[in-house]
Amino acid sequence: MNHKMIFYLTAQIVRVIGVLLLLPVVVAGVYGETRSLVGFASTSAGLILLGTLATLRKPQNTSVYTREGLAVVGCSWIACSVFGALPFVISGEIPHLADAVFETASGFTTTGSTILTDIEAMSRSCLFWRSFTHFIGGMGVLIFMLAIIPQSDTRMMHLVRAEAPGPTAGKLVAKMSTSVRILYLIYVALTTFETVLLLLGGMPFFDAITTAFSTAGTGGFSARAGSIADYDSVYTDIVVTVFMLLFSVNFTVYFLVISKKLTQALKNEELRTFFVIVAAAVILVTVNITPHYEGSIPTALRYASFQVASVISTAGFSTADYTEWPFFSQMILLLLMFVGSCAGSTGGGLKVVRILVLFKSAIKEIRCMLSPRSVVVVRCDGKPVDKEVVHGIGYYFVVFMFLFSASVFLLSLDGKDLLTTITSVATCMNNVGPGMGMVNPSGNFADYSWWAKLLLATDMLLGRLEIYPLLVLFTVRKK
Amino acid sequence: MNHKMIFYLTAQIVRVIGVLLLLPVVVAGVYGETRSLVGFASTSAGLILLGTLATLRKPQNTSVYTREGLAVVGCSWIACSVFGALPFVISGEIPHLADAVFETASGFTTTGSTILTDIEAMSRSCLFWRSFTHFIGGMGVLIFMLAIIPQSDTRMMHLVRAEAPGPTAGKLVAKMSTSVRILYLIYVALTTFETVLLLLGGMPFFDAITTAFSTAGTGGFSARAGSIADYDSVYTDIVVTVFMLLFSVNFTVYFLVISKKLTQALKNEELRTFFVIVAAAVILVTVNITPHYEGSIPTALRYASFQVASVISTAGFSTADYTEWPFFSQMILLLLMFVGSCAGSTGGGLKVVRILVLFKSAIKEIRCMLSPRSVVVVRCDGKPVDKEVVHGIGYYFVVFMFLFSASVFLLSLDGKDLLTTITSVATCMNNVGPGMGMVNPSGNFADYSWWAKLLLATDMLLGRLEIYPLLVLFTVRKK
Repeated sequence: MNHKMIFYLTAQIVRVIGVLLLLPVVVAGVYGETRSLVGFASTSAGLILLGTLATLRKPQNTSVYTREGLAVVGCSWIACSVFGALPFVISGEIPHLADAVFETASGFTTTGSTILTDIEAMSRSCLFWRSFTHFIGGMGVLIFMLAIIPQSDTRMMHLVRAEAPGPTAGKLVAKMSTSVRILYLIYVALTTFETVLLLLGGMPFFDAITTAFSTAGTGGFSARAGSIADYDSVYTDIVVTVFMLLFSVNFTVYFLVISKKLTQALKNEELRTFFVIVAAAVILVTVNITPHYEGSIPTALRYASFQVASVISTAGFSTADYTEWPFFSQMILLLLMFVGSCAGSTGGGLKVVRILVLFKSAIKEIRCMLSPRSVVVVRCDGKPVDKEVVHGIGYYFVVFMFLFSASVFLLSLDGKDLLTTITSVATCMNNVGPGMGMVNPSGNFADYSWWAKLLLATDMLLGRLEIYPLLVLFTVRKK
Repeated sequence: MNHKMIFYLTAQIVRVIGVLLLLPVVVAGVYGETRSLVGFASTSAGLILLGTLATLRKPQNTSVYTREGLAVVGCSWIACSVFGALPFVISGEIPHLADAVFETASGFTTTGSTILTDIEAMSRSCLFWRSFTHFIGGMGVLIFMLAIIPQSDTRMMHLVRAEAPGPTAGKLVAKMSTSVRILYLIYVALTTFETVLLLLGGMPFFDAITTAFSTAGTGGFSARAGSIADYDSVYTDIVVTVFMLLFSVNFTVYFLVISKKLTQALKNEELRTFFVIVAAAVILVTVNITPHYEGSIPTALRYASFQVASVISTAGFSTADYTEWPFFSQMILLLLMFVGSCAGSTGGGLKVVRILVLFKSAIKEIRCMLSPRSVVVVRCDGKPVDKEVVHGIGYYFVVFMFLFSASVFLLSLDGKDLLTTITSVATCMNNVGPGMGMVNPSGNFADYSWWAKLLLATDMLLGRLEIYPLLVLFTVRKK
């Protein structure tokens, strides 16, 4: 493994984070928040210095393959979670390091789980940084860096593949650097569009931009304690619902739309499955919760569609405490957490395409089992799916469930009740945000002990990076 | 598919059940229970008549292959669950059919979940029948029939394979009919041995034999409302604990022991893994619950080892209400439910060998992912496992999790709380018995609506028959 190159690229990411921290420095300046200003400015300066010193000498061997790609992604995200947490600690806004790391990992991984008990007591710059980490993490920290500092095409391919969510990562155009830039343009354009729409609905500027950042990354951090419910506006609910869904879609679909390949875009099987699941869930939940809203179907539909979009997109915003809904609706939301959004979007979960392929291959396996002579091929988008990809997805599911069980097992040592423990791990590994029991939409993760918070932060990273980039750091290769 | 032969073999099973029902007829006679006598005698006569009439003409084409084997198993078990429930309804001991079917399916599948609210109010003959269904179901109704009425070797192989739990079913000796008889001899010998030991401990004869039947099938029905806790005897606890573990072991191991191949028996990787898991779980639970028993390590060890053995063997007896234990111990028990016992035993769950192969293949996949050039083969018992078997186990896990999720989803329509709903499905699909919440060891399944009871009965059959024999009944083969 090319350790020097892994170190070099991670150092570049550290420097990029240092530069990005200049934004909250500006926010702290504007709002006159002295302690936060010190926190952000000192961290920013430190990281830029550190990153620059470490990248003075470029390694001679610049080759990056699969393993290096995964290792860079693993190292970078750990670095982001730890270094990005420093301003919270230095400013005293989140005095404990484990808390700050949890909050930052939750930000970058776009989980949106929080340890804050009084969100509105936070400084504006810290709230800005929380939401901004969602925006950066949504598309990926490496992809952000590559959009600014392109690298050789092979190197970029291995880095993008290691970071992009979903079982396969394709290019939009022949050149990887152009692909990354197009992706980022779409991302920024959609985010800007949402900000404008939220402003038109009368939302204050600071809230509009932080909400848009959190929606874009499908993160879920809000500048208000009551999340989106605080704005109490049907218009805002609709805008956020629509954009949560838009950011859950594979971005290549938008590229096809821009390239005027609309029919090809609509043929995307994952996309259609995603919307069928959303529609079915919204209908079922609406019917189920209408009595809870005194028989008002429009009210039920409003809350049902928001919450379904919030959970399947893994944003995790809330306009209603779903733990007060009938259990059937809660169960639907719990299942949707694991489904998650489309591959190649900013959302989390197992991804619709994985569920789709797993489902199809299970059907295929049953058919083969029952009539051994039949030959059935798993197809997606009309094309046969490569056997290796199908098996890879199967193993991913198995490894995911093992790690899920192991985390639940370890976390239960912290003595929280079963429902809290299970849904905490589910919400963190799937990068959703809120869970049930103690961690319901109006609750938080503050009561977990420090090691439990670090465990959950690890689960967030495992979920966002889809496991392998972290595992590679713990494996020793036999020569 | 050879429908005539499927019908013929199922009718034979029906006749066998009719004959077996003569045993509770005798019990009802001995205890002078008139209504139960009528129930058992009329059902027995009816089934023998029905079975005899339907098997008068043997089909000309007697070929039975994989699909037919699966279909026979599926049809027989449904027939057993429905016909075996009739005496309960006719005698009025369990007036509602859905309740009686639940109880009978729970018996044959060796689950041990009950809808009874007052067990001790039941007639002796009904209690006997409940435990006896565990004994028959434990080894398999078809295997029982084949032990009495042998068939051609190929036919037997397909039938045994379809019914035996675990990913692969081997023969003990060259002839299938001899293998089946040896298995049954070991089974009866162990059960008799347990009965004698329980009698020596001062347990009443009726209780000793029903407890031994329930342990043998790893079922869990007890003639007492308080299960094994009612006897309040350390000796009884130890005997039942040891036999629950003995019946969780692959029976081929006993054959090897009898054949004086002790070293080969001890080399069995599944067996060793099973005991490592049991030992680890007992130690962890003991440490965790010692404060709950006022610091008494022997008491904690007694309850911990009993409950761990009860859950991993999927017997589901209880000596303590584990839902009052710390959550860490509860979580261990919940995870053990899914692990289950060894393949080729009378226990349920996913089976240790499946977990073992899944774990190894996940490690293998990670290695291949991280260094693509390496070639790693999954080994079990030192021999490489066939790729098809590994994939088959992977798909089984995926299908299992899909059906688990679907069942939880449907069952949540019944409006029970989340923990009750999830653990009800977990305990039924893994054939354990008790769950958590409403269905904790001192609770029962009576409050579920009739359709929920039938759904859970289906889950029990899916779990016991390992899914495919039921699915084959719902598939239409394209010609």
